[in-house]
Amino acid sequence: MTCPPPEHRPPPERRSSSPSAPSCPSPTAIIIGTGLVGASLGCALSAAGWQVHLRDRTISHARVAASLGAGTIAPPIRTEVTLAVAAVPPAALVDVIVEALSDYPLATVTDVGSVKGPVLRSLQERGVELARYVGSHPMAGSQHSGPVTARVELFSDRSWAVTPHPTSLPESIAVVEQMVADCGARLVRMDADDHDTAVAQVSHLPHLLSAVMAAHLIEVPAGHLQLAGQGLRDVTRIASGDPSLWGQIVSANADALRPELRAVTQRLVQLIEALGDTADVAGDQACGQVDSRPWLRTQLEAGVQGTRRIPGKHGMAPQSYLQVVVEIPDAPGALARLFADASRAGVNIEDVRIEHDQVREVGYLALWVTAAQASGLRTAMAAGGWQVQP
Amino acid sequence: MTCPPPEHRPPPERRSSSPSAPSCPSPTAIIIGTGLVGASLGCALSAAGWQVHLRDRTISHARVAASLGAGTIAPPIRTEVTLAVAAVPPAALVDVIVEALSDYPLATVTDVGSVKGPVLRSLQERGVELARYVGSHPMAGSQHSGPVTARVELFSDRSWAVTPHPTSLPESIAVVEQMVADCGARLVRMDADDHDTAVAQVSHLPHLLSAVMAAHLIEVPAGHLQLAGQGLRDVTRIASGDPSLWGQIVSANADALRPELRAVTQRLVQLIEALGDTADVAGDQACGQVDSRPWLRTQLEAGVQGTRRIPGKHGMAPQSYLQVVVEIPDAPGALARLFADASRAGVNIEDVRIEHDQVREVGYLALWVTAAQASGLRTAMAAGGWQVQP
Repeated sequence: MTCPPPEHRPPPERRSSSPSAPSCPSPTAIIIGTGLVGASLGCALSAAGWQVHLRDRTISHARVAASLGAGTIAPPIRTEVTLAVAAVPPAALVDVIVEALSDYPLATVTDVGSVKGPVLRSLQERGVELARYVGSHPMAGSQHSGPVTARVELFSDRSWAVTPHPTSLPESIAVVEQMVADCGARLVRMDADDHDTAVAQVSHLPHLLSAVMAAHLIEVPAGHLQLAGQGLRDVTRIASGDPSLWGQIVSANADALRPELRAVTQRLVQLIEALGDTADVAGDQACGQVDSRPWLRTQLEAGVQGTRRIPGKHGMAPQSYLQVVVEIPDAPGALARLFADASRAGVNIEDVRIEHDQVREVGYLALWVTAAQASGLRTAMAAGGWQVQP
Repeated sequence: MTCPPPEHRPPPERRSSSPSAPSCPSPTAIIIGTGLVGASLGCALSAAGWQVHLRDRTISHARVAASLGAGTIAPPIRTEVTLAVAAVPPAALVDVIVEALSDYPLATVTDVGSVKGPVLRSLQERGVELARYVGSHPMAGSQHSGPVTARVELFSDRSWAVTPHPTSLPESIAVVEQMVADCGARLVRMDADDHDTAVAQVSHLPHLLSAVMAAHLIEVPAGHLQLAGQGLRDVTRIASGDPSLWGQIVSANADALRPELRAVTQRLVQLIEALGDTADVAGDQACGQVDSRPWLRTQLEAGVQGTRRIPGKHGMAPQSYLQVVVEIPDAPGALARLFADASRAGVNIEDVRIEHDQVREVGYLALWVTAAQASGLRTAMAAGGWQVQP
């Protein structure tokens, strides 16, 4: 149950122990708050060679995190701390950041809070010198909470927003960005208010829709829930997140959230109106002419387009695909051979569609592959004796 | 790429080839419409020993399904068909069912449409004799469509609603329920209108919320989408389903859907109002006092409770759990040994929470396990030398 070492990550340069290289001392971090994010960060930084200290108001949490390999609960020497990370709930962030700036006088201070603008403004209103403060926000978490579920790879290949303010020191920005790199995360540098709008759109709004759907289930009879499938589970998964934490996040980002919520609610109101048109279209017509209502169809098509705009798992831009069109053979089992040949060509088929020539009564398979792989697949299919469209 | 044989499914009794048992002829099915559901049904019934025939307006689809092992495209002898399945889009269902009742005069006729009441009423209005018709609806599908994505195990362990009407013949109900059993699905018998309310709640409503969220993403700048995480992907996954198919489904079930959509929209309107209260609570207070807004917290807690009402993957009722509480040892690495001991006890730990005794400065791990496993875990932990609370 100790966090396993990360894979696929080059060791950070500063860990070099080659006798000829000058050896730098390990940087020292203190993580304040050892919930899921704090404990996972401790695991990741420890694995990357940092000296990590852990602090938590609830000492058991820090002990559990330490026991999982996130760091030590012994306090650091105050002037040796390179980086202090506030990983506490939103309501406690400002106080913890102000204390850390004072407790660790040479350290860069960051936080991992989900909302950046209000925290920055609160800090500015306190009149604290903020040159050593740089906000950040890892786009990682879980519906689970607490250090027991910590994972060294929690941030691996996830986006991590870093939100410097105009008076942040360049060297402090560099320290925070090194932390992001050492966690294997993808750096996204953003203005604090831009960040807040972005998370309202891609994180807080989906969370609230998920929660509203899940809350509605309380009124659904148990017998009806027997028909629940994977779709409902997917839509409501994040709704099982900690209500106290999410209540703080959503409230803190209320200004950015309201216009997004209003826009989505407006879409739902229009949807109800569009469905109202079917009230007098019963029986035959409800089954026979329902597809002619253009607004509903347009909305559902917009949904499909919207899903395509989400970057892939690895944060890549959606790729452009080309189709290679092959005539469908009429012999049983031939399709299995066709897919086997495509697979041997080392090509990753992203989508398959069937097209039909009504005149010739012949079908075609359109195999969608990345633009880079299309000509290789075309050649391999032709070499295998398949009828490939030019 | 032929559909693999199903696992973990006892062969249906009628397949018995024991020399002493009377051998029954294979039942014959015709599947009309070979999209994902029709082709997968063909694979499942073929694997269970049925003689399956396939028909599709687009012959290429039937050929692809046949090539994947879903059945044959040769037509059946009309009077030998035991079961005809209409697996066509909602708008075509009524016509296909009426034709099948006439084309296959001895067959039971069912359909796999997502909405049952309007179809039944349309059939009744046509004045057709409906004794051999029994509606059904498998709760299985995918955001993909077409026979290429067919899978023999698509229905395995999924709910499958069967919706007889008052004049359905008992022997026709039995044939449809045998089909459900042979697909490895879980039978849920329901009245047609009850079914429509249930799917409005657990399928169509989440689909529309997912679609509305995804459609909203069209207005989100690409830079903001860089922060998208798994939560957004989960919430919007089903929104990539076929807009034409879903347009028909949602329209056909408009009467059942409207009250559900109104209730959820009402929750969102209240949410916007609740968040409006934060407009004048800027800075410090937005970060420090946000958790006190009781309505928002109540909504989020209702969401958590709602997710708990969804039956588990295998359709089981949510189980009752007991906690076994163990003192957290202070030695590094001890927690790893604790989890190893629990694991050796053969116990499945469902959840772990940390509790803290502020006075004694001691922490406890509460391990949540099924009621049946609690005392075994307690004994094993005590035997391992851990301090277990009585």
